[in-house]
Amino acid sequence: MRGDDLTIGFDADDTLWHNETIFENVHLRYRTLLGRFHDAATVEQRLFATEMRNLQRYGYGVKGFTLSAIETAIDLSNGQISAEEIRLIIALGQDMLAHPVELLEGVLDVVGPLAEVHRLLLITKGDLRDQERKLSLSGLAGLFRAVEIVSEKDASTYERILRRHGVAPDRFLMVGNSLKSDILPVLAIGGVAAHVPYHLTWAAERVDTLPDAAGRFFQLGSLRELPELIRGIRTVA
Amino acid sequence: MRGDDLTIGFDADDTLWHNETIFENVHLRYRTLLGRFHDAATVEQRLFATEMRNLQRYGYGVKGFTLSAIETAIDLSNGQISAEEIRLIIALGQDMLAHPVELLEGVLDVVGPLAEVHRLLLITKGDLRDQERKLSLSGLAGLFRAVEIVSEKDASTYERILRRHGVAPDRFLMVGNSLKSDILPVLAIGGVAAHVPYHLTWAAERVDTLPDAAGRFFQLGSLRELPELIRGIRTVA
Repeated sequence: MRGDDLTIGFDADDTLWHNETIFENVHLRYRTLLGRFHDAATVEQRLFATEMRNLQRYGYGVKGFTLSAIETAIDLSNGQISAEEIRLIIALGQDMLAHPVELLEGVLDVVGPLAEVHRLLLITKGDLRDQERKLSLSGLAGLFRAVEIVSEKDASTYERILRRHGVAPDRFLMVGNSLKSDILPVLAIGGVAAHVPYHLTWAAERVDTLPDAAGRFFQLGSLRELPELIRGIRTVA
Repeated sequence: MRGDDLTIGFDADDTLWHNETIFENVHLRYRTLLGRFHDAATVEQRLFATEMRNLQRYGYGVKGFTLSAIETAIDLSNGQISAEEIRLIIALGQDMLAHPVELLEGVLDVVGPLAEVHRLLLITKGDLRDQERKLSLSGLAGLFRAVEIVSEKDASTYERILRRHGVAPDRFLMVGNSLKSDILPVLAIGGVAAHVPYHLTWAAERVDTLPDAAGRFFQLGSLRELPELIRGIRTVA
């Protein structure tokens, strides 16, 4: 594989722009709101349990988070939380949906030049409209040949996307911050993956072990290391 | 245009399976829940106003509806609605997300045979995961060459979809129940459109006048009339 034959897939949240920091700030305000009922650890644990229970029906994104946060607040307060406090939780969600998009350091320097050489795909999960909004605000939309907003990032999702775009797995490099969603499923279908960790990882995206796929898995300290990695990629099979 | 050259796009909700009847039932339960604060007409009017105000941030679908319904309940009760009543509104939304999929009359007889001759696309808006769930439960997924779940069905959306699939507008027939989302934008880009009304139409999808596009706009009484329409389509340009 020559580097310039590569199709490069980019995750969006916490790979191109900040996201988990926004959630983290909302969690802090949420814990404060529920502080008169329970300690922070209990609030976090119950909220996460509600989110996981609702994941199949709500999927990922801010709207499902907000609904789970309301449900958890009612549970944790034994129904004592007030309507006005629930209004504050709705407002937390709406704040997230109106939050400015802040690109990660180095994104503009790296992604623009790559788009001149390679076919770039944006592959992200979450609420359809919110992901579209963030891409639009990011100023990066014109760099991607296609945008795939999906409900889950597993091996079959990546297979479907690569088939749709006529890309062989060993000519596909996925770049993202989540081992679970961006790296492991791509390695599983024979692709190449570059992990660029973000300083925060949502509990649902955590995995315990690093992948073992010599020559196909790369760990980067920042997106700025990506061009050199691509120059170095020559043969995979 | 020969009929067998056609690519046929199908809307999903209220075109292939019942949807607005489910919402209607939920509205009834919601009005009952808020009956001690306001009459039914006021409840409906305020809920619709909230939904429209939130449409840009939430988009279409059950999760946004549920959040708007909670917000409206807090407003209409001046904050007097109880947490347990809000829990009931959350449950209304969750019921919708778990509702069985009931195909409209004639769908199986009509869509299956069409898929043997034409390329079929499913084009729908709403929550990503919920629309995927309904398609999966419908048993129809295998009949569609591609599924496009979009945040808005306007002319630019249809242009993007047709470009992606290499379909000329005058070789594209869209079938759906919404004049606003399925018919007018397709006619605007030079496509052909067949309107199959459902007995209920959400206020946000209503339009006042029928399209004027002789030879490209067809009004059907039921999906069962579609095969004959397609046989009759010969030249458009």
